[in-house]
Amino acid sequence: MSEPAGGQKGAILIADGMADRPVDSLGGLTPLEAAKTPNLDRLAAQGECGLMDPIAPGIRAGSDTSHLALLGYDPHSTYTGRGPFEAAGVGLEVKGGDICFRCNFATVDSSLIITDRRAGRINRGTEILAAAVDGMVIGDVTCFFKESVEHRGALVLRGPGLGHQVSDADPHKEGARVALAQGADEASKKTAQVVNEFVSRSYEILRRNPVNLEREAQGKPPANMILPRGAGVAPHLEPFKVRYGLSGAAVVETGLIAGIARYLEMDIPSVPGATGGYDTDEIALARAVVEALRDHDFAICNFKAADLAGHDGNAAKKIECIEKMDRLVGEVVAKLSWPTHIVITADHSTPVTFKDHTGDTVPILFWGPAVRPDGVKAFGERPCASGSLGRIRGQWLMPMLTNLMGTQEKFGA
Amino acid sequence: MSEPAGGQKGAILIADGMADRPVDSLGGLTPLEAAKTPNLDRLAAQGECGLMDPIAPGIRAGSDTSHLALLGYDPHSTYTGRGPFEAAGVGLEVKGGDICFRCNFATVDSSLIITDRRAGRINRGTEILAAAVDGMVIGDVTCFFKESVEHRGALVLRGPGLGHQVSDADPHKEGARVALAQGADEASKKTAQVVNEFVSRSYEILRRNPVNLEREAQGKPPANMILPRGAGVAPHLEPFKVRYGLSGAAVVETGLIAGIARYLEMDIPSVPGATGGYDTDEIALARAVVEALRDHDFAICNFKAADLAGHDGNAAKKIECIEKMDRLVGEVVAKLSWPTHIVITADHSTPVTFKDHTGDTVPILFWGPAVRPDGVKAFGERPCASGSLGRIRGQWLMPMLTNLMGTQEKFGA
Repeated sequence: MSEPAGGQKGAILIADGMADRPVDSLGGLTPLEAAKTPNLDRLAAQGECGLMDPIAPGIRAGSDTSHLALLGYDPHSTYTGRGPFEAAGVGLEVKGGDICFRCNFATVDSSLIITDRRAGRINRGTEILAAAVDGMVIGDVTCFFKESVEHRGALVLRGPGLGHQVSDADPHKEGARVALAQGADEASKKTAQVVNEFVSRSYEILRRNPVNLEREAQGKPPANMILPRGAGVAPHLEPFKVRYGLSGAAVVETGLIAGIARYLEMDIPSVPGATGGYDTDEIALARAVVEALRDHDFAICNFKAADLAGHDGNAAKKIECIEKMDRLVGEVVAKLSWPTHIVITADHSTPVTFKDHTGDTVPILFWGPAVRPDGVKAFGERPCASGSLGRIRGQWLMPMLTNLMGTQEKFGA
Repeated sequence: MSEPAGGQKGAILIADGMADRPVDSLGGLTPLEAAKTPNLDRLAAQGECGLMDPIAPGIRAGSDTSHLALLGYDPHSTYTGRGPFEAAGVGLEVKGGDICFRCNFATVDSSLIITDRRAGRINRGTEILAAAVDGMVIGDVTCFFKESVEHRGALVLRGPGLGHQVSDADPHKEGARVALAQGADEASKKTAQVVNEFVSRSYEILRRNPVNLEREAQGKPPANMILPRGAGVAPHLEPFKVRYGLSGAAVVETGLIAGIARYLEMDIPSVPGATGGYDTDEIALARAVVEALRDHDFAICNFKAADLAGHDGNAAKKIECIEKMDRLVGEVVAKLSWPTHIVITADHSTPVTFKDHTGDTVPILFWGPAVRPDGVKAFGERPCASGSLGRIRGQWLMPMLTNLMGTQEKFGA
């Protein structure tokens, strides 16, 4: 493997939802403490450890708000709801000021009464339906639409003078008529008009589309309606490269995190074998990180499975997932052949006893040539508590990492 | 004891001024470290410990500003002086925008020269005098007045367009004439006019009141004048229930803390035996906490005596008070029969060597089913320094507690 261009590299390796609480069946240990993690423990022993509040003490972080914070963007000022990041996550280009919606494909009758909010959970042909309405121009506004998984999709409106205080066209129940979106102010009234026109025109386009004619011939409910909901204005975010002067790549498994990376104009390599599930190929993820670092200064990696096991309340499965993460880390470190600082942490806790995200602190370690090893010998919630990093915040990560990398400007003389 | 309504409960148990500095006569231990505290030590061993800056590092907190912070309200933006909270503390209803004053009953001669600023330290009949002036209407402003202990009282002005930049009617010395309040701006000039009218009318009412006629017959100085001072505008504070979605009760011994609780629209059970002094019944306080948790989601308890011993500079007495607090904690834990997370801490230090509040960190512990025990074996300033909470701030308590209780909304997806 040849030496890449550039100097010091940096990576943040995140096991989604890895942190946890004591589990009775594990003798009061957490899954991370109970797991066999020789690579994580070795890096802890060579590195500097601590605990981190991903957003702030006690705050229950989402994966989206947490990743914004870990990349150095204040989620309180930049997180304007799921719409913008989900739209970016499905692959739409989203620009600051765009109005973004989550959408369902639905089935309506000729009176526009909703007979199925999910169009029979349609899972084939939605890319054809989406392409048929994508790019629609309404006055000075362009409508971008893309399908997501199953009956889901995203709508982005781009044009001057659009507001986001808009009610849903989705009435959220079957048997009701498609709602007319209403705007709360002048700008939002313009948005509402565009939404209503988009919904109306889409119906005329979709109901005649061959995908739906075929579904009707098969006795399936046609996906003849698009129901936008949850309007959110896309925030203006400084691209990662502009903020840090570093080229960045995101090796991720979920659309939501990919959306954040795309928003920050980071590269997103595709990783065959990265399923986002328990069966994901952690070695493929690790190699993608190493490859990304070959031609980027920075990489962030999100390994999803640990979070799934937390939501499932399955401690044994969570231990397996954490051991996968340990192999991922081992592979990255084994294959890197240039100076790199690595941060390993979780974006939040998903305790198996709670089955959802909590606002507990998460363990974190910094590893690389510039750190001061602190004598912590194992990577875990309790061992890391005595590390020399103390208790830090997610938004401090990038300054701390770019300091170690030696790429940060001095503040003052 | 039957199971209460609702799910997880939470409590903050505060020993006022408990934290301290090393005391020579205790071999360099603090009173808390020297005290026998089996219950606190047991909870420390089962819980998660740390140190807390009640407001911010080094800041010498009052009990009022600290309790605001511990309940999650930024004291820098919400604390507008003692007036509003003292007025609420004596039982007056205070609303955001009200102008509040601390007052003395005083004695004046017929030329309105003050002959006794405390009306002979009157301690009987002030409730009759207060009722005689309470509810006075001056233009579009209503004046609410209530007596406090001895010669003290509180005045609340409610009406449109009132300012709080008003000088005192109290000249702060005997032999001087009652001062005319002056307003620094238009709104405050209106307030000054109301204050001066209130003072003048009160004199006419009070000097003829039977309580004063009887005092004069007994050769005692009549309480024929009310002297307002220390104008403060009441802040607009979100009620506790609105902010956290939790019903809350305050088991407290002093008017100042009761005022904060009343302001936040928390319930304030009366506790027979809670004297606020060295002789207080700590078991009665503990039982009131348990009872409060029966029909509330949250309780805060302030045990006052440790602070008194600090102000008195009496280390032996402070140890006794802390041992009372230990019994209070033991009783609460013994009598609770539903899942509860408990925080134990002090609102500030009142070192016996300093005899007033200091801005040192205070020990804190979190206890309950969701915490990660950290190996700390005793509750004290030095033992808690190695706990996994690290160094936290007062305003983080409520997010941290509602996270453990499982009642907090997630931020993001």
